Amino acid sequence: MHELSEDRFFAKLFGRLRVQDNSLVIAPGDDCAAIRWHDDLLMLLAVDQVIGDRHYISSGSKASAPQLAGRKLLARNLSDIAAMGGKPRLCLLSMAFPPHRNQAWLQAFYDGIIECADQYQVAMIGGDLAKAPNDEVASLTIIGEVRENLVVQRNGAEAGDYLCMTGLCGDSFQSQHHLYFEPRCREGIWLANKQYAKAMIDISDGLLLDAWRICQASQCGLQLHLQKLPLRNSQRCLQKSISDGEDFELLFAVSPEKLPALQAEWQFTDTPITVIGRFTAGTTEIRDEDNNLLRIEGWDHLRN
Amino acid sequence: MHELSEDRFFAKLFGRLRVQDNSLVIAPGDDCAAIRWHDDLLMLLAVDQVIGDRHYISSGSKASAPQLAGRKLLARNLSDIAAMGGKPRLCLLSMAFPPHRNQAWLQAFYDGIIECADQYQVAMIGGDLAKAPNDEVASLTIIGEVRENLVVQRNGAEAGDYLCMTGLCGDSFQSQHHLYFEPRCREGIWLANKQYAKAMIDISDGLLLDAWRICQASQCGLQLHLQKLPLRNSQRCLQKSISDGEDFELLFAVSPEKLPALQAEWQFTDTPITVIGRFTAGTTEIRDEDNNLLRIEGWDHLRN
Repeated sequence: MHELSEDRFFAKLFGRLRVQDNSLVIAPGDDCAAIRWHDDLLMLLAVDQVIGDRHYISSGSKASAPQLAGRKLLARNLSDIAAMGGKPRLCLLSMAFPPHRNQAWLQAFYDGIIECADQYQVAMIGGDLAKAPNDEVASLTIIGEVRENLVVQRNGAEAGDYLCMTGLCGDSFQSQHHLYFEPRCREGIWLANKQYAKAMIDISDGLLLDAWRICQASQCGLQLHLQKLPLRNSQRCLQKSISDGEDFELLFAVSPEKLPALQAEWQFTDTPITVIGRFTAGTTEIRDEDNNLLRIEGWDHLRN
Repeated sequence: MHELSEDRFFAKLFGRLRVQDNSLVIAPGDDCAAIRWHDDLLMLLAVDQVIGDRHYISSGSKASAPQLAGRKLLARNLSDIAAMGGKPRLCLLSMAFPPHRNQAWLQAFYDGIIECADQYQVAMIGGDLAKAPNDEVASLTIIGEVRENLVVQRNGAEAGDYLCMTGLCGDSFQSQHHLYFEPRCREGIWLANKQYAKAMIDISDGLLLDAWRICQASQCGLQLHLQKLPLRNSQRCLQKSISDGEDFELLFAVSPEKLPALQAEWQFTDTPITVIGRFTAGTTEIRDEDNNLLRIEGWDHLRN
């Protein structure tokens, strides 16, 4: 991977921070950080951005509707809360936009956020709005809640556990999935409450890279069943499908003992669930069913 | 004021939000929103940005040092916590930067944030980093704490109260004050703990506009003593000094009964404190000592 990868950059940055807060329960590096809210309730916190011509098309005949760009900003943050098994509650929004954007465009962008906030019952409690010279950059801080004994981190997978995913993988940008996806909030809460998911992450930077992040955090390897992957577009090159990113599906580890019950009780008929691999002992590498080592590639926010 | 002012835009936006969270104690619209953390402790939350060539000079012979730009991002957020009488604790950071910025520049920007976070004892608990096509946009969500019975809002001023301010006013950009200011965290906490400040705001968008925001929230008028204003640059046009913005000083209301004790006990020898006006009954307008109506002008993030 590139020297200046986002993961490494933040690992280095967070390592340099001297101030520790005694409320911190889960340190940054997972999908969300967690602090103690009160009693056994944790507050989950994360921040994510959408940027014109990076995360949506800003102008021209293929321009994304501003409502969908705004919706995506909140939805991708909701996906981070879902990946911890949490329930979203609050958000703060900041936005920088260029002089050529008028009030109607801005209004439409916010409409997309507000509709999504209504749908997922999120209250907006802060905002900042400013002009930028050229670009559109919107950032949202999401706040959710989860009971301490139910929170799901990335580090709980063990050799022998199965790797499952919700939904389909790959081709998110071309198919417009990245604008229309439903964050897996219900599914994430259900998996946490039923204690089926031992480790969980949402697929934002590509299946392979995000699966590898579970391996890294859990210190185990993975055998990925490439032939069993639920692909959105079966015509697309497999290596691309597992590196595309922005699937915003849940990727999680389940013990062999619990897998049959999970499959029997799964109640989200619109959301397929697929076993796509099995965790292995030893080094944190990913191999396919023929034991070929897979090169970890994905969407790196600093490289791309 | 311009139709699309930031205040009005957010008033309209927040008015359209249907979801209310039962943890909310102080609604957005003040320097921070507040939610219940636990017992009588409130959590203060706010978000603010710095944008290259808006809030600092991005390139050329007068370019601001990236350390100072990063420092400013955190410091201006600390100022919002100070204005509620709160103690800062946590932050989340997102940043979008253009391809021509290298790792050294980025590192220096973060160095400025980290040093300031050390100084003010703030822990960083989340971050996102992405490429933007052209601009540098950094956004920071700040989280602080304050006891519920001590929190200072904008709406507590009454006719007869004095208006005081810390520090100096005007010419922040030319003088580089906007890069080097110390947010008034100690002073804000002291004013809240001693219960001297009945209403408070930080001067970010100009003395006149921010004083008017106290008038609006408190439903009273103000007589401003223009001749007594502590100016950073006495050569500068007075109207400009009170509209410049980015002073990041505290502006607060004190009852006549408490003013002598406040002045006697004020312990921050490096921070001047000045009585600059008196609140009046009736309409929410600001007049000078000769009873001339002052036109409210300041830094509007949507107009400028």
